[in-house]
Amino acid sequence: MVVTKRDITIKDVAKTANVSVATVSRVINGLDRVSEATRKKVLKVIDELNFVPNTIAASMVNKKTNMLAVVVPEIQNPFYTAVIGGTVEVAKKAGFVTLVVSTNGDEAEESTYFESFLGKNADGFILIGTHKTADFYQTIRKPTILVDRYIDNSGHDGVMIDNYRGAYEATKHFLEYGHTRIAIIDGKHDFNDGKDRYWGYQRAMVEGGVSPDPKYHKQGSWLEDSGYQSTLELMQAEVPPTAIFAANNLICQGAIKAIRDLNLEIGEDISLIGFDENELAEFVKPKVTVVRRPTREMGTQAAEMLIKRIKDKSTDETNPKKVILDVELMKYGSVKKMN
Amino acid sequence: MVVTKRDITIKDVAKTANVSVATVSRVINGLDRVSEATRKKVLKVIDELNFVPNTIAASMVNKKTNMLAVVVPEIQNPFYTAVIGGTVEVAKKAGFVTLVVSTNGDEAEESTYFESFLGKNADGFILIGTHKTADFYQTIRKPTILVDRYIDNSGHDGVMIDNYRGAYEATKHFLEYGHTRIAIIDGKHDFNDGKDRYWGYQRAMVEGGVSPDPKYHKQGSWLEDSGYQSTLELMQAEVPPTAIFAANNLICQGAIKAIRDLNLEIGEDISLIGFDENELAEFVKPKVTVVRRPTREMGTQAAEMLIKRIKDKSTDETNPKKVILDVELMKYGSVKKMN
Repeated sequence: MVVTKRDITIKDVAKTANVSVATVSRVINGLDRVSEATRKKVLKVIDELNFVPNTIAASMVNKKTNMLAVVVPEIQNPFYTAVIGGTVEVAKKAGFVTLVVSTNGDEAEESTYFESFLGKNADGFILIGTHKTADFYQTIRKPTILVDRYIDNSGHDGVMIDNYRGAYEATKHFLEYGHTRIAIIDGKHDFNDGKDRYWGYQRAMVEGGVSPDPKYHKQGSWLEDSGYQSTLELMQAEVPPTAIFAANNLICQGAIKAIRDLNLEIGEDISLIGFDENELAEFVKPKVTVVRRPTREMGTQAAEMLIKRIKDKSTDETNPKKVILDVELMKYGSVKKMN
Repeated sequence: MVVTKRDITIKDVAKTANVSVATVSRVINGLDRVSEATRKKVLKVIDELNFVPNTIAASMVNKKTNMLAVVVPEIQNPFYTAVIGGTVEVAKKAGFVTLVVSTNGDEAEESTYFESFLGKNADGFILIGTHKTADFYQTIRKPTILVDRYIDNSGHDGVMIDNYRGAYEATKHFLEYGHTRIAIIDGKHDFNDGKDRYWGYQRAMVEGGVSPDPKYHKQGSWLEDSGYQSTLELMQAEVPPTAIFAANNLICQGAIKAIRDLNLEIGEDISLIGFDENELAEFVKPKVTVVRRPTREMGTQAAEMLIKRIKDKSTDETNPKKVILDVELMKYGSVKKMN
C-alpha cells in the first residue's frame, strides 16, 4: 500500500510523550518494567495522535475484510455504473461487500483514496484509473484489476474492450455505405481507450482510400457539451461531413441534441454512429447505430479475476494478464446509403 | 453499531484454544503470568478466527477514519448519483473521503453492509434506506442522516423534500388547465416519498371537486418498464385519461416511450407531468413539465449535517432534526389547456 508522510510513527509518539521509542514499544506490547504513570502518558499520546501501532495495523491489514473497492472517475456516467453493477453481482455471490469511490477524474483525489483507511483495508481493487503513468499503479500492492483503461508496466491485470476494432468497424460501415466526409468527435487521448478509437478510425479511413481531413477531427472533452458544440461546428461548416462518429456515449448524446436543434434528420441529413449504447441513441427514431460493448461483463470479469487473485495468493503477480472483451456494431437506421 | 451473532468473541477464542477467558485477556493485554507456549497458542487462535480484540476494535472505532459512507438502494438512478455528487463535494472540502455502497434495495444486503468491517469503521452514514421499520435504524449508533426516505422513530436526522406539495402542485396544474381524467402512475407505497406523492395527488383532486377514479391509479414498480406498461394500459382503455402524473423519473421515461410507441403527441393527445427531471423529459419536444427537486442539495445538506454530528459530539441525538427542502413545478409545454 501507499505509505504517506502523514502516517504517525512510533517515533512521533515517543517524541511527543518525551520517552524513548523502546518505552513506547513496551507499552504497546504490554510488557512490564513501565511505570503506571508513563504507561498512561504514552497511551494518552497514542490516543491524541490517533496512532495505530504497527502490530495492530499489520494485524488489521492481514485480516480479510471481505470488501472490494471499485474506484471510478465518476458515477454519473452509465458506463461506470454498469461496470459496478457487474462487479457487485459477482462479489456478492462470493461473500464480498463492494464499495464504490469516485475520484472525480482527479489524480490527487485518487491518491488520497488509496492512502485512506479504506484504501489500506479493502481486500482488493477494481480500478478505472485517473493517473496517466505507471508509477502510481506500481505503488498499489494489493490485488488490483485495471478496467477499461490499461497502463502498461502497471504490474496489474486488466479487463479491456477492443476499442480499436470498434472504431474501425464503425468507420468501415460508413465507408461501405459510400460516405467519405466522415468526422470523428472525441476527447483527450489520455488513455488507451480514447487513443485506440481514434487510430481505429484512422486505419479504416486510410484502408478505404480516404485521406482523413483534420478539419473533420473535433477533439474536445469526453462530455455531452463537447459533443453538442462539436456537432454544431461541423454541421455549420462550409462543407459539412455526411457522417459523424461520436467516440463515446456522452458525445453521442450531445450530437443527437445538436442535430435535433439544427432541425436535421438523423440517417437522412446526417449519418451518425456512437460508441456505447445510450439512452438517447435508443430513444430517437431511427435508433442510432452504436458500437456496443459488454459493460456489465467487464465488471463481472474483473470481479472474478480479482477474487481469484485475493484467494489464490500463489498467482503469478509478475505476469499480469490482460483480458480483451469483444465489441459489436449494432446497425440501426442512422447511416444513410450514399451509393 | 449492529452486533451480529457472527462476531467472534473472546469466549470463542478461549474455547478454541482450550484456555480460560482470563488467560486470553492476559495475552491480549500483554500481561505476564502466561507461559510462552500458551501465549503462542492463543495468538494462533486469534489469528485463525480472525478475532479483533475489543480493545483494538474499540480503539479502531474511536479513531476517526475520515470516511463517510453513502448507502443507496442503487446507483443506476440519476437521482441517487446526484445526491452522492453533492455529498462528495461537501465531504471533500471537510477532508473526508466518501464511499458509496448500493444495497440493491435488499434489506439483508443493507444489514450485511452495516455489519461489515466498513460499516463499523466509517465515521458516519448518509442513508437512503431500504428497511421499512424503525428497529433497523435504531441499531445504527454512529452519526447517520436519512435522505429522501424518512422512518419515524429511527432516532436519526433526515433530509427530505416536500413530496406531498410537489404532487399536489402538479395535479392542481392539470386541474387548472381543465383536466379531470387525471391518472397517476406510481410504485409501492413502502416509504414516505411514494405515499406522500399519492396523497398530494388525492388531496388536489378532491379539493378541485374531482373524485379520483381508481381505474386511473396504476400502481406497479418505480421502474421504467412499469411506467411504460401502465401508460399503454391507460391509453388503450375505453376512456383514456387526458393527463398522466408520472410519480418518479423512471416511470416518466417509460411513459414518454409508450407515448412515442403509440404515436401520440405529448401536450396534444396526452398531457404529462413527471416527478424529477430526467434525460428524456428534457429531450422531447415539447419538454415535459416536471416537479424539480434539489437533488444535489439534498446531498450537500445531508453531508453538512453529518459532518457537524461527527465533529460536535454534544449534539442532542435524542432530538433528531428533519430538514425539508422545497420543490418547484417547472412548466414546459406538456400540459394542454382544455378550457
